[in-house]
Amino acid sequence: MPDKPIFPTPQDAEAAFYEALERADIEAMMAVWAEDEEIVCIHPGGPRLVGYAAIREAWRRIFDGGARLQVRLSHPTSVQGPLATLNTVIEHIAVRNDESVRAPVVATNVYVRGVLGWRMVLHHASPAPPDSVGNAPHKTLH
Amino acid sequence: MPDKPIFPTPQDAEAAFYEALERADIEAMMAVWAEDEEIVCIHPGGPRLVGYAAIREAWRRIFDGGARLQVRLSHPTSVQGPLATLNTVIEHIAVRNDESVRAPVVATNVYVRGVLGWRMVLHHASPAPPDSVGNAPHKTLH
Repeated sequence: MPDKPIFPTPQDAEAAFYEALERADIEAMMAVWAEDEEIVCIHPGGPRLVGYAAIREAWRRIFDGGARLQVRLSHPTSVQGPLATLNTVIEHIAVRNDESVRAPVVATNVYVRGVLGWRMVLHHASPAPPDSVGNAPHKTLH
Repeated sequence: MPDKPIFPTPQDAEAAFYEALERADIEAMMAVWAEDEEIVCIHPGGPRLVGYAAIREAWRRIFDGGARLQVRLSHPTSVQGPLATLNTVIEHIAVRNDESVRAPVVATNVYVRGVLGWRMVLHHASPAPPDSVGNAPHKTLH
């Protein structure tokens, strides 16, 4: 098994995550994750998956499904510390060769610094209202 | 305005968060949150709210709605560091005096240690499949 890549910053890990998602590359995807029993992945509308094996298996099924996804990211937020970084972002996901409109997804991504660089410990994605990013609903209510 | 409480541990902050939610106490709720422009709150099915003012306004509207909630927590996970803690938990939310069954909610809660103890910087809650907690779907597929 080849050595895993080292991600010097949380941004590097996040870029690798979304690149692996678009390429449907299971090895690249799982290289982003910390090998920890307490890592958590929640796909939109799906159950909470805990641990490396369960998370790998879910990504494998998604990638084996054959849909090639294109993800555009917008409206990032970040709380950065020396050992952990918390990002949120709006994902605009489209299926290649499928023009149907997709609702945006809001994602929380958490990365932790270890001896081999930064790794993902949580990805929590859930559907967001189509017309809302940031604080838009707050703004339209007043 | 009274001094805000100090939460010596992430567990203290989390307990105060759910207690404030059940009591519909806006001041107690907002005392749990870090006063930071980058804090994020996502209610189930709702938009991403960013910043203290937007988050406070959303909680105020929920609490003003009058429904008194009871929350039972199960299946916690935790990744703890010296400066930040990442928890996930299954929330079983019921409305008092309303016997209708509620689907579980999966919540990600992130706390950061500051000079005045631990504060919440993210709450991301989304509906979970009714029959799934932990890795249950993984287990039933094989």
